[in-house]
Amino acid sequence: MSLAIICPGKDPKSWIDAIHSQDPTIDIQVYPNIDRPEDVEAAVVWQHPKGILSKFPNLKLVSSMGAGVDHILTDTSIPEHLPIVRIIDEKLTWSMTNYVVMGVLNFHRQITRYQKDKARKVWDMSNPEIEVKVGVMGVGALGFDVLEKLDYMGFPVVGLGFSEKDDFPFPYFPKSRMDEFLKEVNVVVCLMPLTPDTQDILNLGFFEKCNPGTYLINVARGKHLVEEDLPVAFDKGYLSGALLDVYRTEPLPENHPFWNLEKLTLTPHIASVTNPSAAVPQVLDNIKRAKANEDLQNLVDRSKGY
Amino acid sequence: MSLAIICPGKDPKSWIDAIHSQDPTIDIQVYPNIDRPEDVEAAVVWQHPKGILSKFPNLKLVSSMGAGVDHILTDTSIPEHLPIVRIIDEKLTWSMTNYVVMGVLNFHRQITRYQKDKARKVWDMSNPEIEVKVGVMGVGALGFDVLEKLDYMGFPVVGLGFSEKDDFPFPYFPKSRMDEFLKEVNVVVCLMPLTPDTQDILNLGFFEKCNPGTYLINVARGKHLVEEDLPVAFDKGYLSGALLDVYRTEPLPENHPFWNLEKLTLTPHIASVTNPSAAVPQVLDNIKRAKANEDLQNLVDRSKGY
Repeated sequence: MSLAIICPGKDPKSWIDAIHSQDPTIDIQVYPNIDRPEDVEAAVVWQHPKGILSKFPNLKLVSSMGAGVDHILTDTSIPEHLPIVRIIDEKLTWSMTNYVVMGVLNFHRQITRYQKDKARKVWDMSNPEIEVKVGVMGVGALGFDVLEKLDYMGFPVVGLGFSEKDDFPFPYFPKSRMDEFLKEVNVVVCLMPLTPDTQDILNLGFFEKCNPGTYLINVARGKHLVEEDLPVAFDKGYLSGALLDVYRTEPLPENHPFWNLEKLTLTPHIASVTNPSAAVPQVLDNIKRAKANEDLQNLVDRSKGY
Repeated sequence: MSLAIICPGKDPKSWIDAIHSQDPTIDIQVYPNIDRPEDVEAAVVWQHPKGILSKFPNLKLVSSMGAGVDHILTDTSIPEHLPIVRIIDEKLTWSMTNYVVMGVLNFHRQITRYQKDKARKVWDMSNPEIEVKVGVMGVGALGFDVLEKLDYMGFPVVGLGFSEKDDFPFPYFPKSRMDEFLKEVNVVVCLMPLTPDTQDILNLGFFEKCNPGTYLINVARGKHLVEEDLPVAFDKGYLSGALLDVYRTEPLPENHPFWNLEKLTLTPHIASVTNPSAAVPQVLDNIKRAKANEDLQNLVDRSKGY
């Protein structure tokens, strides 16, 4: 049995170290140097070259290196029977929530206003707080933690998910009632999985339905946002500002208009980074389960896309 | 019976409105137009002219307009028997905690670094988090709420207070063990009352004892900080940055060096503002108690200074 690591453009060293510190006997082959494809029974992947997984005749399991699996599911050549799993990492959740709460508080307490006032030596004590109500799109492990922490801090919150839910502990709307959800809130956090259904969801029509001056935080995927619609939404006042961590092209190209958008705070896809030492035990446990034909942890439902 | 409002330089209107919406029959005299001093049985004050309180022969109670009473206690002419009370307001506590958590998260997630990177169009994903351990100086209503919220969010915290405490629910040091406290943490939040004992406590000797690169948040009083020591502490690397809301002179004078300090984020004393509609019921309740000779709420211990 061999484990393939396939993450072109990403240094696999921390993953190799974490796997071997857990079990030094595991045979690892790292793409593109996989010379014994028939030995590969599990693959840990991040943006793998499409089609490559069909080269491993004995593959039993594909694991994402992170929480998202959109980069896997866009490869339609993956056989239907092959289980795909993802990582749910408390540390990843913790970082994500901290980042989102930071964004909410900076909007609530207007940190960029005070930075500008400082630059102009202006002392203006008026209206020190913007009242906020936070809507979280996506109520999985990540979205739920954001809702829980903001609620504990005393902020009103609303969740939005794919399905109807009867016993959700926070105010909740299914995606079919998006318009009502948007009328409730003035901070929108996107934490949805990227699926054909959610791609381009953050577009001008969406922003038009927001309460004027809504603040947008996107920490999910770049493809959720129609990027050229963002400056328009600022200009029209639909949005008063945004915090983005993800982009359609990463690294963000040097000539991208986002660098110069004053109302935009941007970070280079660092809201939350999977920690291999937390992820590897999950991967190894799932390999064991796959071999024993047991139920897998964090199995992806390919019909839902997450 | 008449209630005196004495807050030179501050518009008393929101207080008058809040008092009359609670009890329209209350007679209010606003400084400097107090022509019936013998009627004044209670005074609500903010930076009153020293000596003025001795002009009211029937005064039974002095209430601060906020959480701090340093502006009252520096008036040594106030008769010893006269009770002084302060406001403890949940909304004030909530705002204060949000402000502090914002400061902690912005340091933890390095928001100013990413703002600079944006301005230079730099995409740098390395080291996205600074590990933080937060020390809160002052563990009264405000400090305790900060400790509780940060702890819930998963950050390690340490408190520092005046006295020994056996059953404090967080790691704790008395002020006599300040050096040990500072060795534990890399974010220092000052939420102490201003007393002769804490004035100038944030000075170069203090910063020298901090872990290099410590981040300072002062939301208590300007006089806690020896202001000329702050740029020195930045230059020597004792502190990597600071968030200040209070200053020795407010508004901050136009020629003050703080405006130009790059490592300093400053706000114009807006971390937390007492809300008259929350404070007035406390004031009126204390007036009733004072007249009935009952125990007062939030009574200040003048020997401790808070």
